[in-house]
Amino acid sequence: MPLTLHIPTGAQTQFLEITHLVEQELTRLGLRDGVLHLFTVHTTCGLTINENADPDVLHDLEQRLADMIPHHHPQDRHGEGNSAAHLRSSLFGPDLTIPVSQGKLVLGTWQGIYLCEFDGPRTRKLIFTALAT
Amino acid sequence: MPLTLHIPTGAQTQFLEITHLVEQELTRLGLRDGVLHLFTVHTTCGLTINENADPDVLHDLEQRLADMIPHHHPQDRHGEGNSAAHLRSSLFGPDLTIPVSQGKLVLGTWQGIYLCEFDGPRTRKLIFTALAT
Amino acid sequence: MPLTLHIPTGAQTQFLEITHLVEQELTRLGLRDGVLHLFTVHTTCGLTINENADPDVLHDLEQRLADMIPHHHPQDRHGEGNSAAHLRSSLFGPDLTIPVSQGKLVLGTWQGIYLCEFDGPRTRKLIFTALAT
Repeated sequence: MPLTLHIPTGAQTQFLEITHLVEQELTRLGLRDGVLHLFTVHTTCGLTINENADPDVLHDLEQRLADMIPHHHPQDRHGEGNSAAHLRSSLFGPDLTIPVSQGKLVLGTWQGIYLCEFDGPRTRKLIFTALAT
Repeated sequence: MPLTLHIPTGAQTQFLEITHLVEQELTRLGLRDGVLHLFTVHTTCGLTINENADPDVLHDLEQRLADMIPHHHPQDRHGEGNSAAHLRSSLFGPDLTIPVSQGKLVLGTWQGIYLCEFDGPRTRKLIFTALAT
Repeated sequence: MPLTLHIPTGAQTQFLEITHLVEQELTRLGLRDGVLHLFTVHTTCGLTINENADPDVLHDLEQRLADMIPHHHPQDRHGEGNSAAHLRSSLFGPDLTIPVSQGKLVLGTWQGIYLCEFDGPRTRKLIFTALAT
């Protein structure tokens, strides 16, 4: 079985920083050099990397997404009413691959890893795969 | 030569489910544990994962994209008239990496793999690479 | 240390083709068959693949992005005023994985690799990782 993590989210739309959790899973996998692959098994959330310092960045991302991909659209047909979450999920993407060097994620100073919840709150499942060079 | 698949699409804009084709290629590659990498060699289509159950989700994605990234834009200069397809291609992305466990794709219940045609119909070429852990 | 490249960009918004630089790094890494992974350690730029022939495509991408994700938004709070760049960065993504066969990138005729600058000009740092099959 691949390494799996269940992460509860706390709102309908949320950028939840998971950098520390990803670091824990990397330690568990014991990868020294290569890449770490992250994957969500869902269609209404995503994974991204963005600023980890000023929470106003996350606020602005949410506000801009609310304008660009609003929750309701006059031509939506899908009965669950979460088509916005499906589109956001495809645009952010379900996978992320991050370099690893000497047992640590190679991230920039301002880079944090985020689970992007677009239809929560729910518990989301992530799969981690370590690929050595 | 890497494993290559040619897939004909059927409309100008189409989310074509290819999960079963990807499973066939995985079997051909014989990967047991690791990740499968998919790549399109084009600039007006993309790859994504989204809901495989209710076709209304795909309808809503198309309608919302038509509003957000319309086929015609007053400032477009590109003579082929398919700049919308180029932008969509970059936002959806040409690559997708999916975990594999015990010879099977690790996908959620509602996850299907889609070839996103934004300037069809055409025949699209996909490259598959198996990376073992 | 992973293979690192520093690339100066030349404008606030720019699609800078780096295909030849990526080919050089691939040669340096000496990978014959597998995939090459590219990663930016920043949160206001991205990586993408798009058309390498007609520069009008890049013009159209910039114009359409300027409409879709404008530099200023009435609800922005982030003091640096670059929230548009942060959103674009997440939508284009910080990573790209490209197949490699017989020592060469497997790219389509019209595919070029681009560093997408959304908050420049700056010098951007890229990490390259070779994964053999």
